[in-house]
Amino acid sequence: MQNEPNKLLDSIEFPRDLRQLPVEQLPQVCAELREFLIKTLSDNPGHFASSLGAVELTVALHYVFNTPEDRIVWDVGHQAYGHKILTGRRKVFDTNRHMGGLKPFPSPEESEYDTNTCGHASNSISVALGMAVAAKMQNIERHVVAVIGDGSMSGGLAFEGLNNASTTPNNLLIILNDNNMSIDTAVGGMKQYLHNLHTSPFYNSLRNTAAIKLGAWGWLDDKRRRSILRFNNSVKSLLLGQRNIFEGLDIRYFGPEDGHDVVRLVETLQRIKDMKGPRLLHINTVKGKGYEPAEKNPTVFHAPGRFIPETGERIQTASEGQPPRFQDVFGETLLELAKEDPRIYGITPAMPTGCSMNILMKEMPERAFDVGIAEGHAVTFAAGMAKDGLIPFCNIYSSFAQRAYDNIIHDVAISRLHVVMCLDRAGLVGEDGATHHGAFDLAALRPIPGLTICSPLDEEDLKGMMRTGAFAQDGPFVIRYPRGCRPQNGTTPHPAGPEEIGRGRCIKEGTDVAVLTLGPIGYVALEAAQDTKVAVYDMRYLKPLDEALLEEVARNFKRIVTVEDGIRTGGMGSAVMEWMNDHGYNIPVTRLGLPDRFVEHGTPKELYHLVGLDKENIKKAIT
Amino acid sequence: MQNEPNKLLDSIEFPRDLRQLPVEQLPQVCAELREFLIKTLSDNPGHFASSLGAVELTVALHYVFNTPEDRIVWDVGHQAYGHKILTGRRKVFDTNRHMGGLKPFPSPEESEYDTNTCGHASNSISVALGMAVAAKMQNIERHVVAVIGDGSMSGGLAFEGLNNASTTPNNLLIILNDNNMSIDTAVGGMKQYLHNLHTSPFYNSLRNTAAIKLGAWGWLDDKRRRSILRFNNSVKSLLLGQRNIFEGLDIRYFGPEDGHDVVRLVETLQRIKDMKGPRLLHINTVKGKGYEPAEKNPTVFHAPGRFIPETGERIQTASEGQPPRFQDVFGETLLELAKEDPRIYGITPAMPTGCSMNILMKEMPERAFDVGIAEGHAVTFAAGMAKDGLIPFCNIYSSFAQRAYDNIIHDVAISRLHVVMCLDRAGLVGEDGATHHGAFDLAALRPIPGLTICSPLDEEDLKGMMRTGAFAQDGPFVIRYPRGCRPQNGTTPHPAGPEEIGRGRCIKEGTDVAVLTLGPIGYVALEAAQDTKVAVYDMRYLKPLDEALLEEVARNFKRIVTVEDGIRTGGMGSAVMEWMNDHGYNIPVTRLGLPDRFVEHGTPKELYHLVGLDKENIKKAIT
Repeated sequence: MQNEPNKLLDSIEFPRDLRQLPVEQLPQVCAELREFLIKTLSDNPGHFASSLGAVELTVALHYVFNTPEDRIVWDVGHQAYGHKILTGRRKVFDTNRHMGGLKPFPSPEESEYDTNTCGHASNSISVALGMAVAAKMQNIERHVVAVIGDGSMSGGLAFEGLNNASTTPNNLLIILNDNNMSIDTAVGGMKQYLHNLHTSPFYNSLRNTAAIKLGAWGWLDDKRRRSILRFNNSVKSLLLGQRNIFEGLDIRYFGPEDGHDVVRLVETLQRIKDMKGPRLLHINTVKGKGYEPAEKNPTVFHAPGRFIPETGERIQTASEGQPPRFQDVFGETLLELAKEDPRIYGITPAMPTGCSMNILMKEMPERAFDVGIAEGHAVTFAAGMAKDGLIPFCNIYSSFAQRAYDNIIHDVAISRLHVVMCLDRAGLVGEDGATHHGAFDLAALRPIPGLTICSPLDEEDLKGMMRTGAFAQDGPFVIRYPRGCRPQNGTTPHPAGPEEIGRGRCIKEGTDVAVLTLGPIGYVALEAAQDTKVAVYDMRYLKPLDEALLEEVARNFKRIVTVEDGIRTGGMGSAVMEWMNDHGYNIPVTRLGLPDRFVEHGTPKELYHLVGLDKENIKKAIT
Repeated sequence: MQNEPNKLLDSIEFPRDLRQLPVEQLPQVCAELREFLIKTLSDNPGHFASSLGAVELTVALHYVFNTPEDRIVWDVGHQAYGHKILTGRRKVFDTNRHMGGLKPFPSPEESEYDTNTCGHASNSISVALGMAVAAKMQNIERHVVAVIGDGSMSGGLAFEGLNNASTTPNNLLIILNDNNMSIDTAVGGMKQYLHNLHTSPFYNSLRNTAAIKLGAWGWLDDKRRRSILRFNNSVKSLLLGQRNIFEGLDIRYFGPEDGHDVVRLVETLQRIKDMKGPRLLHINTVKGKGYEPAEKNPTVFHAPGRFIPETGERIQTASEGQPPRFQDVFGETLLELAKEDPRIYGITPAMPTGCSMNILMKEMPERAFDVGIAEGHAVTFAAGMAKDGLIPFCNIYSSFAQRAYDNIIHDVAISRLHVVMCLDRAGLVGEDGATHHGAFDLAALRPIPGLTICSPLDEEDLKGMMRTGAFAQDGPFVIRYPRGCRPQNGTTPHPAGPEEIGRGRCIKEGTDVAVLTLGPIGYVALEAAQDTKVAVYDMRYLKPLDEALLEEVARNFKRIVTVEDGIRTGGMGSAVMEWMNDHGYNIPVTRLGLPDRFVEHGTPKELYHLVGLDKENIKKAIT
């Protein structure tokens, strides 16, 4: 292979080219595809280990199914780079995740091979079921395949899809890609369950023998025997309802199979492809398969950044002189609070590493709960803990918290429970694009009665707000902050934030124009306002608003400019405008924020420039 | 019993009184409680059949557990009237659902016996798990019991809770109250699964015998034998992962048991009460148990209104001369559209009767899908259908649609899919109270890019908007409308609505002050504006806004009053204000809408008066 690099892969522009090859050449295609992934991603970072683990599955699917006419519905899309490369995007794959380049996840806007919006977990079964029903209803002979990881199976949406799969007329095929991981390790009863399924050779050998024996005892009537034959998994069907979870839901179950044996996968898929009714094929794969450093450390290699392909050594970007990342401050402060007060607990839906709750987990494992990909449960579970005397810190990425909107309203806010919600990845997250930007949190949460909502200007402020949320508040408390560290601006000092809830502060005196900001973007506004007479106020709290501050601004300035990294519609600027209008102040407000469209991927710097939230654009707006 | 009415029940003020009785008297308590429920609810309507079915369970729980120190977490709360009556609220039970009276669902604000906010389904396991963990972590000897119906089990949140129950240290007891119904019939694989479980005497007899035989074959090693003994359900454990769904998730399973044998229930609960670890007791009950008309027709008697207790005859309120209900118009129009175009489909999460999709189901059963209590799935399933050429109408109650917030953003809006979402029960719903008001839809959905959002003034407008949503739009389309019919106002004519998307209309000419309304509340504004010079505009569309209309208003009026039945924060009024400000119009806007607090229960009339959205208050605001 080293002598003839990508001989086969180079000949595959689209799946139809792949389908010309004899099945014996597929292992070679897989090897080349894996090599291509390692080489490309070591230099142009992205989600890595998941795609390595799905190489054989991807090749087998496009080999067996007539894509794009047949539909493959990926879940999350972390694992879909191989799919992109085999579907017309190999030559531009080095633009992956770049602004204007390939999108970070499969997207119907990019390719007809991408059937659904990927990014948030657990939606594939529902989407695919809708497609399978659409095919059936329109008498279209089309195969629909959902590919879902075991991590995504912990999401309630996946269960809702499964629960409906058998009662709707459809020929859906679900492939459960089981690598015993989500981004960190998978959690929950389902994880154990799947583990038991695939370590159960005992069970497999028991199937047929038991059917015969039990038949002999007279426990098998004819109807039952037929059903056993039909399903070909005797004991499970025999025990009526006592079948495996999927069969219990009337979904025909196959597997578990080795997800890295591409020839056998092709055979299996060909065998079950034309069967009727909903089916599930369970395959076992290894996250990071074929690249030793990734197999050994799949969490790190989930999205490792740049690395040296020969050694797996990660190329660390210099962070010297940078302020600490908000994630680290969150993690350290949570540990500090937990040590201080036995009521403090941490809850994360599958993001212990990403949000740095692993710092608490490591030192006080009994004080943190990773509930799996289950944002709704994370919040409602926190509500139960808060009701009975604990103080849970529930950390959810802003865009994923959209999954918990009703839980925040119904289970926390109505009962005014003391849950501290920390929304990480607020604002534009960068390369992960439209599905991952934390754009809606401020506008969506602001209307909910009884919430306190704040955002720290910097790391010191985050510490203070976490402390305030823990001890100064007896109700729901939301802190939102972006990925990474605040904009660097070492030279501009600002007064420390007051501890009082709902208090903002002036961080630059001025006349005529007042800029009101929320969160770390205040640093950018501050820079933009340098060498001008413009005043800058850091609101700190979106709810309750600092009315004294607003009154001061209304009385002393002629114009207000609001700056926020959330959606402009209904956000902080609107809150300020509502207040001014309700209080009879007739002062024009220019609102800067995210536009009323989905913002694509790029570096945060590029994107903030694009949407007019960089220093230059803010400067234009304030002067 | 007829000679000595409520002899026992009258002596029970609190559960501690109940616990004084010998167990033999409990059937009598149940009979009296049931009689009390029938009598009271026939005159003061509420949720009926669910509570009848849970009488024995309620009595047994309060008899066995030391409430309120032990926690009973009800799911939804439809079934909790018996619980209210036994926990200090019997004498005021005739104020149930009245303004200022007992709340419609259990609420911690009302009683220490009510542990959690009830109303939305499927949250009980997560809440109870939080409480069980809190007890364990604080070394409190306390029992926590979640009571969940089979209908609620179809919700993804319930699964997320179950999936976490076994991996967290806790002694949670889950009671699955299985009546094969949610509000309409339960749906999905889970329903069939539970049915199989409880019609499986074969399985029960198989348990022990099989263990012995299989042991004799050498298939049972010592470790396995111990685990079998420990769990006391031999075959299931024997087959390693191949156990029932709950055991598969490592939750110890008991049942199914007769949920109407109170003495046996007490015995069972006493037996499993002090066991360690998460357990599930599966009981079978009959919705409407003990009242023949309700047993025969549990969907009608879910919330039957007033009825004659002796006969079950429902006392219909005169609706002569009233406009048609929006629900009926939705149902009839959907059927009409479905007949006209084969691409039209209906999707409802467990509300076919409530939203009138049963009209379509009856005539064209293959064209409608009841997906169970699974709002997230309903929307994402619709997305899949829309992607492949169908036009799904997804009808969800406004407050339940909060459950699908991310699905609307991620699975529909980002891909600009042609899903028509009809949000029923928008605005204040009345007696169902804080958890059920459709208060947040406008404010929460308005920031989402690419949504079209409208609300009909009346029934004719709803028909037109459904047609527009089906045929004039190729993207996400949201129609929101309230429960029941528009405010009666037969005498005020108004011009028919234009079909163009994003077009409002003037429904009363005037000068100086312009009232801008959205939805049927426009009729109230119209009445308030009678005999004044005030103009009234029906916006019809919240998004996109009718910019020509707004410009006309801005140029010709001195003041704007906005009127909406959604939350004031970030709602339609804010949209108008944002537009005026962005376009340089300096015109004061008075925004009328729901206040920044949770509104309790009462009749819609009382509540709209309370929040200042009745004719008199609007009149004050506009003059």
